[in-house]
Amino acid sequence: MAKENIAFYVVPSTDAHGSEYLAPCDKRRQWLTGFTGSAGTAVISMGEAYLFVDSRYYIQAARQLDENWTLMKVGWDGMKNWDDWLIDHARGVKIGIDSRMISLEATNKLVAALTPRASSLMFPWQNLVDLIWKERPVRPKDPIYVQPIQFTGEDAKRKLGRIREWITKSAPMTERFSTNPPKEKDIPIAAFLADLADIAYTLNLRGSDIPYTPVFMSYLFITMENAILFIENGKISEEVREYLTELGVQTKEYSEVWPFLRSKDWGAGKVLISPDVPYTVARSLTSLRYSVAPPFVAVRRMVKNEVELAGMERAYLRDGAAMVQWFAWLDEKVSQGYEIDEYQAAMRLKEFRAQGELYQGLAYEAIAASGPNAALPHYVPPRHGSNPIDRKTPFLIDAGGQYRDGTCDTTRTLHFGKPTDPQAEAFTRVLQGHISIDSAIFPEGTSGAKLDVLARRALWQDGYHGTGHGVGSFLSVLHIGFGKDVPLEPGNVISNEPGFYLEGDFGVRIESVLAVQRIRTKNEFQGPIWLGFRRLTQVPIQLKMIKASMLSKEERQWVRNHNEECRRKLEPLLREDKRALRWLRKECQPAFRSEASVSGVSIEWD
Amino acid sequence: MAKENIAFYVVPSTDAHGSEYLAPCDKRRQWLTGFTGSAGTAVISMGEAYLFVDSRYYIQAARQLDENWTLMKVGWDGMKNWDDWLIDHARGVKIGIDSRMISLEATNKLVAALTPRASSLMFPWQNLVDLIWKERPVRPKDPIYVQPIQFTGEDAKRKLGRIREWITKSAPMTERFSTNPPKEKDIPIAAFLADLADIAYTLNLRGSDIPYTPVFMSYLFITMENAILFIENGKISEEVREYLTELGVQTKEYSEVWPFLRSKDWGAGKVLISPDVPYTVARSLTSLRYSVAPPFVAVRRMVKNEVELAGMERAYLRDGAAMVQWFAWLDEKVSQGYEIDEYQAAMRLKEFRAQGELYQGLAYEAIAASGPNAALPHYVPPRHGSNPIDRKTPFLIDAGGQYRDGTCDTTRTLHFGKPTDPQAEAFTRVLQGHISIDSAIFPEGTSGAKLDVLARRALWQDGYHGTGHGVGSFLSVLHIGFGKDVPLEPGNVISNEPGFYLEGDFGVRIESVLAVQRIRTKNEFQGPIWLGFRRLTQVPIQLKMIKASMLSKEERQWVRNHNEECRRKLEPLLREDKRALRWLRKECQPAFRSEASVSGVSIEWD
Repeated sequence: MAKENIAFYVVPSTDAHGSEYLAPCDKRRQWLTGFTGSAGTAVISMGEAYLFVDSRYYIQAARQLDENWTLMKVGWDGMKNWDDWLIDHARGVKIGIDSRMISLEATNKLVAALTPRASSLMFPWQNLVDLIWKERPVRPKDPIYVQPIQFTGEDAKRKLGRIREWITKSAPMTERFSTNPPKEKDIPIAAFLADLADIAYTLNLRGSDIPYTPVFMSYLFITMENAILFIENGKISEEVREYLTELGVQTKEYSEVWPFLRSKDWGAGKVLISPDVPYTVARSLTSLRYSVAPPFVAVRRMVKNEVELAGMERAYLRDGAAMVQWFAWLDEKVSQGYEIDEYQAAMRLKEFRAQGELYQGLAYEAIAASGPNAALPHYVPPRHGSNPIDRKTPFLIDAGGQYRDGTCDTTRTLHFGKPTDPQAEAFTRVLQGHISIDSAIFPEGTSGAKLDVLARRALWQDGYHGTGHGVGSFLSVLHIGFGKDVPLEPGNVISNEPGFYLEGDFGVRIESVLAVQRIRTKNEFQGPIWLGFRRLTQVPIQLKMIKASMLSKEERQWVRNHNEECRRKLEPLLREDKRALRWLRKECQPAFRSEASVSGVSIEWD
Repeated sequence: MAKENIAFYVVPSTDAHGSEYLAPCDKRRQWLTGFTGSAGTAVISMGEAYLFVDSRYYIQAARQLDENWTLMKVGWDGMKNWDDWLIDHARGVKIGIDSRMISLEATNKLVAALTPRASSLMFPWQNLVDLIWKERPVRPKDPIYVQPIQFTGEDAKRKLGRIREWITKSAPMTERFSTNPPKEKDIPIAAFLADLADIAYTLNLRGSDIPYTPVFMSYLFITMENAILFIENGKISEEVREYLTELGVQTKEYSEVWPFLRSKDWGAGKVLISPDVPYTVARSLTSLRYSVAPPFVAVRRMVKNEVELAGMERAYLRDGAAMVQWFAWLDEKVSQGYEIDEYQAAMRLKEFRAQGELYQGLAYEAIAASGPNAALPHYVPPRHGSNPIDRKTPFLIDAGGQYRDGTCDTTRTLHFGKPTDPQAEAFTRVLQGHISIDSAIFPEGTSGAKLDVLARRALWQDGYHGTGHGVGSFLSVLHIGFGKDVPLEPGNVISNEPGFYLEGDFGVRIESVLAVQRIRTKNEFQGPIWLGFRRLTQVPIQLKMIKASMLSKEERQWVRNHNEECRRKLEPLLREDKRALRWLRKECQPAFRSEASVSGVSIEWD
């Protein structure tokens, strides 16, 4: 830093593709700070070292950082995130960052704000962390494979075709008021993709470079006639090579992407890039040769076709059956007084999942949390010395499997003893938020962010805010970055996961995954513009945790229907496991009375 | 336009202060188009003439425009507003506008987007409408007067003091990381106000230049020691002159403001302006001499102090009493079979209001709408030939008085016969939205925009969207421009007005005005961060319109409490009017059964 005369060096928690989940060799910020969370940015000045994390990670980061680091709790009485913090604090200085690890959009925002403050961004030609990172893990080299049409519902030729249509359509408009038509050099003739999920989706290819995420390190350059995939050669089998040639996709070495972009090999015309590409992309192309467009592929990717949805539904049945088998096992063991810790429990769940058809591994590290650990929304039990699961506090499980036909993500909160009143009340408020989202009907053009407050209102009524991220944001979406203000459309898949987190005590979260679909309403004003949800997750909600007297008649009916549907759909998959079948039927019995009376409440019955 | 070589000329519906409501002499867009709505922008090209209006005005504008005009329905299948429309359609052309009638912010946005399209904004030195507007009304000349401390709760010296503190605080930060402290020329030493309400608020002065709004044409330049008020001399009485001198405020002619800003009479240093000042202000100062800051006065103004709130509460009691007297009169007459039209009814309401203490006139033209007219959210009955009030459709009244101690704004929807099921169902859904907002509890930092969906959910459940603006936006605020994403804070006064509008049939709106206040909750997580509402409006809600079986127990209880509170608070003001007293007691009786059975519903009773 001294050599480059840098006052601050920024280490983001991403890779050269803007990924949230990283290959071990790209976990620079984790290696530097010791903080293992997936989001958080390190800023080093000559004298100090700061880690900026959002409220989801306040507690975890405080535990993991050593005395060399100052924890910056973003959002905690007005603490800004690293970029705005730098804008406030940097005057007439240079700020260094690896231009592969900050997006074009973020760079523009930062530069615009820094310039009037006589500060500037600069991009050392080497990543300063890489200079000092000994024993850095090697780049993954696993081969990639084709995801067949019966899972994707659309072949790669078709997808490339759509992208090319979009490139054509993106030409600057020449309206009747225009006096000068666009010049050749302004007409887009190619698109460049850096996002790993975008590339895997477009080519119907999968890989295993990143744990829990079936993607592979690559960049994709698409012209009107053909395309170039930048990827390490070793990853491509003969079969895949033929598949690519067939598609008109040639390959180049992964490392050749930057020289290629700096060259002009594709002639005149613009390359379309999205605002979230790594800044290096824009730098290499130079502003003369790119034009920024909305992220077409990312948005398409978020609209699942019928084949994809059908696959997800099948996957969620298998995943739900595994969870029910495991709940039954865990309930039995804990009641029998066995001491089972969080880690063991999570491992057992993995075994149940592994029996499922088309199982590929876990979708993410399971969050299995008892008592206070459940107040850490991103707690993962350590291999050794994790908490035993007790009968006094709610137990939270957030887990899902990867299957060839779908990725699953479900959270349930169970109690193996007698819930206390505060526990039952918190659970019931969370449930009311969950129901309010699940049963919402809304017109086209409504964004998830707009609906979010529905998940929160019930908790707010009691002044429940929870610590940490309080009520979980409704719009955390599986493997698809989802602009909070993007209007929901049929085929979008989102997760409904209100939660309540009481630091040092307990946590509650109820998460089901929903697909947006058209809904017929009583009064179809403005035609069929009405949307609602179809639930993919099929796992019962534990009645014992509910304080039924707090629910309205409609809410009680919703719970009955929900569990009845789970029973109907899961029973056929559980014929072999009597214990699971018993547990399922018990949990899904229509009445509240017995369970609710546990939390000491009498219910007016209708 | 030909002379200036302008392809488009824009005529906004504002004045040289960014006002929404205008003096007759400033209603250029209305004079040009014939459209009388308060919001809408005209764009004239050499061949065509367009009027852009939002959904509130689709129907009204269609009625009022002649064949020379093309109506542009903003928001209707993707139609953009005038600025974005011009960005799409203008290529290599000049767009003319009066720089007094577009904000700095809007100008910057437009210029940034037009430049890459080889188009530009230009500002003819004369307003093209003024050139052709014959018989233009003269500028108002009424004297201004002092608003005494018992109504404002804070004297003008104090307010100017706060503004000066803010000017000092706005100096650029010099943080420990800074290497170069700010230069003298960069330090703010004055503030300039163009917003009429900001000025009236700051100086505790009122005027009557604009119908229904107690403001006066002026600009205010505030330095650390004194201030200059730009205003027509004739408006200043001896008394007001002394008051101003006492405050250290000198006056200059209204028209001298622009030459003054172009001069440098206040020496080195920056003038603070807000992003919404007319662009002329920035132009006259030049970028060297202003710095843009958040609208300090506008935000302060939105936080009512205890004296202001107490005043509003008193005003709302008198205003509510007048409405009840009028409802009683109208109910009687209509039941007796008299034919009363909307205009006559509105006039009679004005008479009842006029009897109220401290009455200053109406706060706005009353919306008195029967049947289909109620589907026009901004319908004002014409003097001649307005609809007779019938007994088949709901009657909507949206009206309020101006009092020295407060401005009122209330909407109720009544039925003088037997509501049909669709009418009662729509009313009940609107009521549920109204209740959901009224009883909401939310943490600090929550914006009104965030809560908005609570007002809509119930209507959405039935696929009610309504035409026009469908469910009325929750954040339309009395006389205080309110950034939709500004967090609500104690002292903010907002209006809760969900509505439902069925074109050609009927309309329903229930509007009460609420003050944000701190709320104690059951679990005070993160301390006393909890906010809720205190209702200022005191006018009963008609039980007859409610389909009680659609309400939850809690909602029915809310209605009982609401009407009971109205009865308790209004009775003392109605001792003289037996008819009103009778009507009030009938409307506020605790039970639903009788009324609800009217809409043919049996209610399970609790």
